[in-house]
Amino acid sequence: MRILIKEIILNGKKSDLLIEDNLISKIGKNLNLKAEEKIEGKGKKAVIPGLINCHTHSPMILLRGIGDDLSLKDWLEKVIWPREEKLTPDEIYWGTKLALLEMIKNGTTTFCEMYFYPEAEIEAIKEMGLRAVVGLVIVDLSLLGCTKENAQKIYQKLKNKLPPTIKLSLAPHAIYTVSKENLIWAKNFAKKEKLILQMHLSETKEEVKYCLKKYKTRPVEFLEKIGFLGKNCLFDHSIWLTEKEIKILEKNRCSLVYNPSSNMKLASGVFPWEKIKGRKINVCLGTDGPASNNSLDLFSEMKIAALLQKINSMNPKVISAKDVFSMATRNGAKALKIEAGEIKVGKLADLVLVDLEKIEMFPNENLISNLVYAGGSKAVSDVICNGKILMREGKIEGEEKIKTKAKRFLNYGFN
Amino acid sequence: MRILIKEIILNGKKSDLLIEDNLISKIGKNLNLKAEEKIEGKGKKAVIPGLINCHTHSPMILLRGIGDDLSLKDWLEKVIWPREEKLTPDEIYWGTKLALLEMIKNGTTTFCEMYFYPEAEIEAIKEMGLRAVVGLVIVDLSLLGCTKENAQKIYQKLKNKLPPTIKLSLAPHAIYTVSKENLIWAKNFAKKEKLILQMHLSETKEEVKYCLKKYKTRPVEFLEKIGFLGKNCLFDHSIWLTEKEIKILEKNRCSLVYNPSSNMKLASGVFPWEKIKGRKINVCLGTDGPASNNSLDLFSEMKIAALLQKINSMNPKVISAKDVFSMATRNGAKALKIEAGEIKVGKLADLVLVDLEKIEMFPNENLISNLVYAGGSKAVSDVICNGKILMREGKIEGEEKIKTKAKRFLNYGFN
Repeated sequence: MRILIKEIILNGKKSDLLIEDNLISKIGKNLNLKAEEKIEGKGKKAVIPGLINCHTHSPMILLRGIGDDLSLKDWLEKVIWPREEKLTPDEIYWGTKLALLEMIKNGTTTFCEMYFYPEAEIEAIKEMGLRAVVGLVIVDLSLLGCTKENAQKIYQKLKNKLPPTIKLSLAPHAIYTVSKENLIWAKNFAKKEKLILQMHLSETKEEVKYCLKKYKTRPVEFLEKIGFLGKNCLFDHSIWLTEKEIKILEKNRCSLVYNPSSNMKLASGVFPWEKIKGRKINVCLGTDGPASNNSLDLFSEMKIAALLQKINSMNPKVISAKDVFSMATRNGAKALKIEAGEIKVGKLADLVLVDLEKIEMFPNENLISNLVYAGGSKAVSDVICNGKILMREGKIEGEEKIKTKAKRFLNYGFN
Repeated sequence: MRILIKEIILNGKKSDLLIEDNLISKIGKNLNLKAEEKIEGKGKKAVIPGLINCHTHSPMILLRGIGDDLSLKDWLEKVIWPREEKLTPDEIYWGTKLALLEMIKNGTTTFCEMYFYPEAEIEAIKEMGLRAVVGLVIVDLSLLGCTKENAQKIYQKLKNKLPPTIKLSLAPHAIYTVSKENLIWAKNFAKKEKLILQMHLSETKEEVKYCLKKYKTRPVEFLEKIGFLGKNCLFDHSIWLTEKEIKILEKNRCSLVYNPSSNMKLASGVFPWEKIKGRKINVCLGTDGPASNNSLDLFSEMKIAALLQKINSMNPKVISAKDVFSMATRNGAKALKIEAGEIKVGKLADLVLVDLEKIEMFPNENLISNLVYAGGSKAVSDVICNGKILMREGKIEGEEKIKTKAKRFLNYGFN
């Protein structure tokens, strides 16, 4: 399958771009080649890498708008957990489909997922065509099947049956929900199978206190001690870090995921960008779940990511539009170990076309600035992932069916 | 002219709504009345008050994306001022039209404006159909005609020639750019003519320092001393306030405009909501100019407004989605002294229809939460201002013409 994109703006210049199978195969002027699909940019669309959401719990879209503006404790204990306990694989499947509709509309092509019933999620992801790293969640409460035994079982069952767009990872939930023994198991299993290890880390002060009390040491130091840390580690939130902990994370080449909206909405804290920038720590971006954001729009997240750091340090120069754009593209690709996040020959064809005629893109003086600060998601017109067109001129195949089904099935609040 | 809106969701229930001339005249079930225009809600659209942007410099859309991520001083002195000096009334006219396109698309029906060449702005606003309070700017540098003499001249010329949707106001720029004598003149003129007084106030620490040095007193105390304060005062930013200053503002029933994105982007400071909430101070919302935001999307601004206060106070309960929705609707109407911001019989027909079938509105559990946190602007489908339809199903009459003209005229960066 070949897709030829004509007269597209790439890095400020008009180019043609050819996709063959799942890769970008040619970039240049006047490519007059045969292709099964043709997209006309007419110099009025720009191409950017598909965005990469490095931390989310997609099916939590089902719980969006339920219990906002609460403390984390009340939100979890009174609102979220009682509902999560009752979720079925069928609901997870439809929730994932809804969430992926929203991701595609907002120009996300890859995401790193952590939630219950990964098999149901994977079915939905396959059908929607996005690229994903799906976490097999481990928590000690064995909530909805999240045991290490079950993770291992699913892993063995699926590992040779997945499309190249979907990778499994291990997701021990957090230090306060997974025992030392199980963390060590996860680390060893990930090492043996060469898997990414994703985990919530130091999201709240309470979490650090818990660790200090239980293990007499801070979270990152504890993880170092048990040999958990490495290049395959992707730590979500990572807010309450000391200088010493940051040095340990750097030494071990870990990736961190900044989740500004969720961190602000739940008043968890501010990701320590000022202390981390310039170090050999790979910083990615995530929306967190749509119940604590409440959106899956990474463009909006880039804006909030930049604004929060500027005000927090009282320094408008501390972070730039380019910095946050890198977090949501190449840094995400690096963390998830995929050849994407950049538009170059040989890279994966995970692309987003942006309509420069949208009012948010006026004037077209600085594309990255407009995408980050002016509302880039409104200009997303076409989305391609792994060489397949997922959205064309704002239309996604099957969108209405998913919504209709979801409304009936989930008894959504329509009158 | 009558517009009948059928089966629209209003406060969670299906209703019909009749607009006669510029007012909401009937709300109820099964209104079968004659009307020149009919809009079918089919129970799949909700109606909310048109949003009110209480502080912006619309034509700064022309400078969007030029010089982000700089300090306020560098941004103003090296980027913005050299370009502003060269602006012509024709550019202001087209800039205003572009900005108003963006406002309508994002569900704003009323805005409070402060920029150069108000006559050019007013022409554009009349043609676009929004409601506006237009400031006649006064600065001591007599920049681009912003003298008190000129303000007075324009006022006398226009005061009886404006449509009911446009009001003039006085806009002495700030304490550090307008002399005491001119501030007193503005205050007296506004009193005599019953005008709103809009002014930047305590946006930065430097501004407070300047006032302390020049007048040996803090900004609000200084304004009280010269008799400036009253119900007609609308103060933009209002960040660096002491407890004593807040009490003075409360005593004088002033309105304040919170501009979170701009305050974060320029690292000016955090609006002191925690100290102000619950007092008799009317808090409104504004985007500030699109060169320091860089968007005119009040839905996005509501989200950022809530998130910033939560993280700043480390308390997720300090502000709710409803609080920020009120800022952007009824509080704005109160400050601008217009009968809008609520959907009730007898109120102005300034309405926004929201498409509940958009993915951002799923599930429809809590409409205000979805509008604020999930990306409400993407669901705006129809906009009505003063009983006239400005946007229908996403389409604004003349949009293409404005863009084409603007691109040619302004030599926008299209290849």
